Amino acid sequence: METAGGYENQYRVPVPPSKPFLKSLQTSLKEAFFPDDPFRQFKNQPTRRKLLLGLQYFIPVLEWAPRYTFHFFKADLIAGITIASLAVPQGISYASLASIPPIIGLYSSFVPPLIYAMFGSSRDLAVGTVAVVSLLMSSMLGKVVSPTGNPKQYVQLVFTATFFAGLLQASLGILRLGFLVDFLSHATIVGFMGGAATIVCLQQLKGMLGLVHFTRETDLVSVLRSVFGQIHKWRWESAVLGCCFLFFLLLTRYFSKRKAALFWINAMAPLTSVILGSLVVYLTHAEKHGVQVIGNLKKGLNPPSVSDLAFRSPHLMTAIKTGIITGIIGLAEGIAVGRTFAMFKNYHIDGNKEMIAFGMMNIAGSCTSCYLTAGPFSRTAVNFNAGSRSLVSNIVMATAVMLTLLFLTPLFHYTPLVVLSSIIISAVLGLLDYEAVIHLWKIDKFDFYVCLAAYLGVVLGSIEIGLSIAISVSMLRIILFVARPRTAVLGNIPNSGIYRSMDQYTIANNVPGILILQIDAPVYFANASYLRERISRWIYEEEDRLKSAGETSLQYVILDLSAVASIDTSGISMLEQLMKNVDRKGLQLALANPRSEVMKKLDKSNLIDKIGKGWIFLTVGEAVSACNFMLHTCKSTRVAVEHNAQDSNV
Amino acid sequence: METAGGYENQYRVPVPPSKPFLKSLQTSLKEAFFPDDPFRQFKNQPTRRKLLLGLQYFIPVLEWAPRYTFHFFKADLIAGITIASLAVPQGISYASLASIPPIIGLYSSFVPPLIYAMFGSSRDLAVGTVAVVSLLMSSMLGKVVSPTGNPKQYVQLVFTATFFAGLLQASLGILRLGFLVDFLSHATIVGFMGGAATIVCLQQLKGMLGLVHFTRETDLVSVLRSVFGQIHKWRWESAVLGCCFLFFLLLTRYFSKRKAALFWINAMAPLTSVILGSLVVYLTHAEKHGVQVIGNLKKGLNPPSVSDLAFRSPHLMTAIKTGIITGIIGLAEGIAVGRTFAMFKNYHIDGNKEMIAFGMMNIAGSCTSCYLTAGPFSRTAVNFNAGSRSLVSNIVMATAVMLTLLFLTPLFHYTPLVVLSSIIISAVLGLLDYEAVIHLWKIDKFDFYVCLAAYLGVVLGSIEIGLSIAISVSMLRIILFVARPRTAVLGNIPNSGIYRSMDQYTIANNVPGILILQIDAPVYFANASYLRERISRWIYEEEDRLKSAGETSLQYVILDLSAVASIDTSGISMLEQLMKNVDRKGLQLALANPRSEVMKKLDKSNLIDKIGKGWIFLTVGEAVSACNFMLHTCKSTRVAVEHNAQDSNV
Repeated sequence: METAGGYENQYRVPVPPSKPFLKSLQTSLKEAFFPDDPFRQFKNQPTRRKLLLGLQYFIPVLEWAPRYTFHFFKADLIAGITIASLAVPQGISYASLASIPPIIGLYSSFVPPLIYAMFGSSRDLAVGTVAVVSLLMSSMLGKVVSPTGNPKQYVQLVFTATFFAGLLQASLGILRLGFLVDFLSHATIVGFMGGAATIVCLQQLKGMLGLVHFTRETDLVSVLRSVFGQIHKWRWESAVLGCCFLFFLLLTRYFSKRKAALFWINAMAPLTSVILGSLVVYLTHAEKHGVQVIGNLKKGLNPPSVSDLAFRSPHLMTAIKTGIITGIIGLAEGIAVGRTFAMFKNYHIDGNKEMIAFGMMNIAGSCTSCYLTAGPFSRTAVNFNAGSRSLVSNIVMATAVMLTLLFLTPLFHYTPLVVLSSIIISAVLGLLDYEAVIHLWKIDKFDFYVCLAAYLGVVLGSIEIGLSIAISVSMLRIILFVARPRTAVLGNIPNSGIYRSMDQYTIANNVPGILILQIDAPVYFANASYLRERISRWIYEEEDRLKSAGETSLQYVILDLSAVASIDTSGISMLEQLMKNVDRKGLQLALANPRSEVMKKLDKSNLIDKIGKGWIFLTVGEAVSACNFMLHTCKSTRVAVEHNAQDSNV
Repeated sequence: METAGGYENQYRVPVPPSKPFLKSLQTSLKEAFFPDDPFRQFKNQPTRRKLLLGLQYFIPVLEWAPRYTFHFFKADLIAGITIASLAVPQGISYASLASIPPIIGLYSSFVPPLIYAMFGSSRDLAVGTVAVVSLLMSSMLGKVVSPTGNPKQYVQLVFTATFFAGLLQASLGILRLGFLVDFLSHATIVGFMGGAATIVCLQQLKGMLGLVHFTRETDLVSVLRSVFGQIHKWRWESAVLGCCFLFFLLLTRYFSKRKAALFWINAMAPLTSVILGSLVVYLTHAEKHGVQVIGNLKKGLNPPSVSDLAFRSPHLMTAIKTGIITGIIGLAEGIAVGRTFAMFKNYHIDGNKEMIAFGMMNIAGSCTSCYLTAGPFSRTAVNFNAGSRSLVSNIVMATAVMLTLLFLTPLFHYTPLVVLSSIIISAVLGLLDYEAVIHLWKIDKFDFYVCLAAYLGVVLGSIEIGLSIAISVSMLRIILFVARPRTAVLGNIPNSGIYRSMDQYTIANNVPGILILQIDAPVYFANASYLRERISRWIYEEEDRLKSAGETSLQYVILDLSAVASIDTSGISMLEQLMKNVDRKGLQLALANPRSEVMKKLDKSNLIDKIGKGWIFLTVGEAVSACNFMLHTCKSTRVAVEHNAQDSNV
């Protein structure tokens, strides 16, 4: 059958010429790993220029530094000092969250920002330590080595984990596997961050209540048991001081939120709290009445820590695992933050390049007594609002931190831990993004449940459990989409040759004697059997409907393959079986708009000839015209077929 | 913007009315778990009839037994005796493969076929033990308990594993999770079975060469080392006998393959070999010259084995794991075989019902000294060719095996093990399906590599490794499809309002000033960033092309969403960002044919209003008409927009 029984097809669906396997592999690899075509700018350039462009590609500072002006510097200086005033108290606070000496938190705000300023491609990102990652470090590493019992070994593990996090980040970037980060969906991140913020706040009850012993577990039940199990040890001095500062910090946050120009109130509040708190303790000698203070901080810059990387430790696997998880979370947050602010200023961020920058900064950090850093949202927002123009603001911040390390550390001696707790709480409360949760609920219930699963997993189980639950549920959705694709019956939109889903378009009408089905996903092994069953059901349901309505019996089944972008061998067998089934019922199968890959495989499996070239159409409209033509002019030719059909139905 | 700048849309894309969440959940659950609508026949029936139909649904024998005739029985009798002659030697052989006493192999051909005859929905399936599953049992359970050192405990573990396999199979059926079996793609099964056949053959070198000690590992390297490490222990008597019988069996197989009517030659050959082999040994007393024989077999029917189920064994987890893996493989083969033969006779097999039948038969089997049974392809093919009409042939086979158990077991005393090895080899050689491999290579290279990975994994690693590699690679393909969906530029097919991919249709032409992009997959978190980057690249590539060709500059970007069946919140944000980007470049975004779910979410997120209702079209053709209308009649209105664009590009 070259043509459908006398009907001459108006358009031909071509079989694509077969490409050599290597060529098509190359094309798909390029599409998969270089969707942004980074080599574009190198085309048709002299070799010297290519070299320069290559250097600029890997070290973006070379690209923008020559264009840097004094005008920009003034803006960056203000922004840099602003974020430094945030970086110092946050660095100390988050270090306590990671159960490491506070000085390491300061070290971590010195070297990494300098490295990022060289390699980063964002203009607004403010580098620093991250609350969630800090907590994750302490909860994962604290399980194998006690931070209080064996502080030296614990700190070594922290550096080692940081090293592996950096290594992972850099490798992901170099291997262009950045898309792996995309598998952490927005819903997952919202739920996960919310859960992490909740447990971080709960952990701060230790500092707020002045407790000395506290559980190492992070789940709700353990923490509450730990808090209420030692009511008699609560210290009211600590609690009062903490609540005052928390109230102060939340108040400043509230004002800053109402007016963007008041961002500096929020930015300066932590440092103000630290200074006020230290003064209060110094003057009242509260450290002798149950208010714990930081104590001595060593003066001086970051000591090298290459020899502390514990590659031979028996806990190396734990360090690697911690590095992988914290590294990915750091990346996910950092890249999302970078992209958000890049959108405001309309420039582009290259995810893979960012990963390399993050990786370099953490590898360098792990060798200079820093722990894991990323691009926290809060600090970046302050940087942005303070009017930063480039990464020079990070350099200014690093310089300010350096000066602090060299001269000002003794001033933190009397800083009460409870102020640090208040700072942490007020910072992570911003991670409880209830508006995003409402948005998820409104738009996509499934995403909402993913988010909820992540939140509950983190709060009731552990950070790792929450993360793995959320990722599995998200993946399940993708798998389910492919395993159970939708099929829809199409009908004619009146006064047109257009065919659309009858569910969606209530005005669409059935075409007598013809069933038009649309398949909404690639046909793969995972859904081939399902589709066969579902399509059979559509056919007998339509036959039943026509019979009970006393209409023309079914003669043609048209499959609209517009949305079938891909097919595998199981899919091809499914089509073959379907054709046989349809044939046996005395019906004729027609295909509409098969895509290039489907045509290629139909051709290779000789299925085109079995279906008949004339039964493959460019559009559903044409397929219907052909079927109608046959129905009305060639009724006699179908008698034999129907006779056969009756035979096989007996 | 209600209409696109003066252009009146011809068709409206409706926003589907929002359904209550529970209602839509119910619909999707029904689609996911009951695609074949099994309740259809119950509709509008009186209660009594409903009960009868329900019983018949769960116990299909009630449905077909009343219609059974003597005419059918004659056919089934012949088929039943034929498969019994295959079942007895195969039962004994496969039991040796599973390292259990040969009598259990016979037991397993008695009870399970009777149970399956009641619950099964296939008419042609011949129940029996399976080579691959037998080997898997011995390789997995043999690792924790030695079959020779502690035979009693080993057999208990085998029964326990069988019990859990049955439990899993029945639960999958009852929970309607049958689709999980579909995740074993055809390519995976071909590679896996080929690999298993290879290692089963290699294992038989033990029997063929009369070796007493042999490795428990199944991989190529270990087996070859074991074989060539003890060359001095090879027994030529055994080898000669084995090769003769193997030659005989392969010869009969060759003849049967050439002519379907000669199927009985192949079916009778194993029994003939057993009889001949036993006679030779009995007459020559070869058992005293290095030819190992079966020895004593107990007379009598299956003893109960409920008390042997070792639920308190320390190796319970291994038994459960073995049960899960063997159960799934048994199911996958059994259902595929059932479906294949059902297609020949044009009846339908309900996968979930089959699973319940398999489960019942294995649970019952594990309580009556049987090990795992399924529906092997070879035996079913013989049954089919012998003209079976119903599952009564299984009952006949079971009766014949019963008679053997009661009276004929002593006859197997002198049966040489080497004959069993020949029977196994000739049976599993049929699993090396090189034609299917060539088919895979021709049609889908990716499927071919999946198949190869499964084969190499099994042969070089272990059965479990092969299986998990193949499944992961298959899943990776699905994930990659979703993570890296194709996008294509559409062009106009001359003399029509049809737009198709310019790659596929070389006759398609660009539309001046308009870029039409098609997205080929649902937009999910896993691909949202990729799509944003890829679409941006399409836009700047088109702008470059137009600039260098000196054509009309780009004004409109039309997204054809026909193939976007689903979208999540990340996808919605992606569209929102894309709209902003396009806007910033001074271009206008239009959407064509958004599907019902996309429209719903566009509406809920207020994105419809942001894009403008007038910029959402039913077809690409109409979108292009609207853009052209604007381009030619309203040029002046765009000047302002372009001006803005220049500003923001600076």
